[in-house]
Amino acid sequence: MSYDLTLDEVQQARERIAPYVRHTPLSPLPALRNDLPPQLRLKLENLQVTGSFKARGVFNNLLQLDPAQRERGVITASGGNHGAALAYGAWRLGLPATIYLPAAASADRVARIAAWGAQVIQHGSVWDEAHQRAVAHAAETGQAYIHPFDAARTVAGQGTLGLELLDDLSELDCVLIAIGGGGLIGGMAAAIKQLHPHVRIVGVEPNGAASMRYALEHGHVAPLPEVHTIADTLAPRAVSDRTLKLTQRYVDEIVTVSDAQMVGAMRRLWAECNQIVEPAGAAVIAALQAGAVDVSQHARPVALICGGNAAVESVFASYHPR
Amino acid sequence: MSYDLTLDEVQQARERIAPYVRHTPLSPLPALRNDLPPQLRLKLENLQVTGSFKARGVFNNLLQLDPAQRERGVITASGGNHGAALAYGAWRLGLPATIYLPAAASADRVARIAAWGAQVIQHGSVWDEAHQRAVAHAAETGQAYIHPFDAARTVAGQGTLGLELLDDLSELDCVLIAIGGGGLIGGMAAAIKQLHPHVRIVGVEPNGAASMRYALEHGHVAPLPEVHTIADTLAPRAVSDRTLKLTQRYVDEIVTVSDAQMVGAMRRLWAECNQIVEPAGAAVIAALQAGAVDVSQHARPVALICGGNAAVESVFASYHPR
Repeated sequence: MSYDLTLDEVQQARERIAPYVRHTPLSPLPALRNDLPPQLRLKLENLQVTGSFKARGVFNNLLQLDPAQRERGVITASGGNHGAALAYGAWRLGLPATIYLPAAASADRVARIAAWGAQVIQHGSVWDEAHQRAVAHAAETGQAYIHPFDAARTVAGQGTLGLELLDDLSELDCVLIAIGGGGLIGGMAAAIKQLHPHVRIVGVEPNGAASMRYALEHGHVAPLPEVHTIADTLAPRAVSDRTLKLTQRYVDEIVTVSDAQMVGAMRRLWAECNQIVEPAGAAVIAALQAGAVDVSQHARPVALICGGNAAVESVFASYHPR
Repeated sequence: MSYDLTLDEVQQARERIAPYVRHTPLSPLPALRNDLPPQLRLKLENLQVTGSFKARGVFNNLLQLDPAQRERGVITASGGNHGAALAYGAWRLGLPATIYLPAAASADRVARIAAWGAQVIQHGSVWDEAHQRAVAHAAETGQAYIHPFDAARTVAGQGTLGLELLDDLSELDCVLIAIGGGGLIGGMAAAIKQLHPHVRIVGVEPNGAASMRYALEHGHVAPLPEVHTIADTLAPRAVSDRTLKLTQRYVDEIVTVSDAQMVGAMRRLWAECNQIVEPAGAAVIAALQAGAVDVSQHARPVALICGGNAAVESVFASYHPR
């Protein structure tokens, strides 16, 4: 089976979802100190609706459902961000939604999803277990299962970020993109490389959940024996045939970062750019800070800040009206 | 004495400081729910170097010091953001800096300033007391006192934000701006109104520190009997003749918000835009949410998010590498 993604699919997705998602800022944000490349730009997709790129794939799915499917509603399993985006999209379009999360999902992630009126069910210790239960649930109820990364419409939606980047920076020459299930990098890399084959695409995975590197090494999709990472939204045990194929075809290299490096990068993004992001959103900065990626030969490199849904309730607890 | 600010001064400031400050994003960020105006744009000045607009006025001062002044160094008193910007500017340009803060300044504000190598001295219960001591200190040592709002070069620097807004949005028709000492609104309003007299300029003050409204009501600068607000960077007891005059001439109206409204707006900015900001940065959103300002008749209104230096150390404490 071919898993390629055509430019046309991505361009159609972009038109389809435009009324529902934000064109996020591409910010030249030279670091205050000197250990990040001064020519680096940040694509602040943490400013997307519901705080991550996931809204793009979600709307591209929801807007293509037929009326009977819309009435039965939608279901998914999510590390958190796809679930929040689906809950929001369903609320916006008036569909019922059910979201499975792993049992260990933070109260913050549960609350963000429940806020949009979706049913939240916590099951299993990792995403893959929640996913299996949600697929069974969908089969029983006839709800449409909206896959967080292994679906053509999801990947086409995430690919719109590639087109948006090229619109804002036609001389783009390198992009750093975090990898969870691979839908984001697959969609973006396919869109960018078909237009500009010489743009370097670098994937970044947590070293405790490097499911794409594992699949590349084995030449096929294989579940990691275990995952251990603070980046809960990058933690599926396995990528998919679709995202592996897109990565093999369009991605130049993959590097890994540690949890401590991601937390260091979170601090850096706060200290230098006043952006609080989740560990996944900081992974690309961690790769630069750790020296895992060198972009010094690029004139227009971009680090994609893919999500910002950190747990921050404690911040508000420290502000007591006087 | 005339306190007017010419367009030429602001334009010169803009050229002077350009290599040292960021052109911050102007983001169309429609709210997810429906109680904020959908046509609203946010000027994300919380993304400025050191997290607030203060870097603009600081660099416009520092870059005009003569060599002898540069050698003796600079001094100021600050609610926090001006101090951080001055400490950074001094570090960047290689000058010694001394920053006075009120005794109650948070550990977070002290740490941000000390990180740039400045000497931090905490004195007095409010900014005004720290200011008096810092002025005396400057007289003893010959250091240049860089006033956070009552100085022509400071106000001209802040005014560059007005020019930047008009560059990005020539059809701008309304701006909401928070007021502390009045340097920001004075500079911005002067720049904007001299180019586009019909743009509506709305100031927003905490109701527990409404020093500009108090001065306007009295027709002259007068210190508030007391200040009580969670917005520590908006809390001087008195504005200055300069900023009062600029406000009388160029600002259309002033509204006030409560601490609880600012905290509510902080939550809104986090929930809908993934931006953690300090209470001052959320004040303009508080005014919209509370209905204190109605921008429904404007096609291109902008809310200026003036600063983002919230105390967030607790966020990082919750992320333990696995």
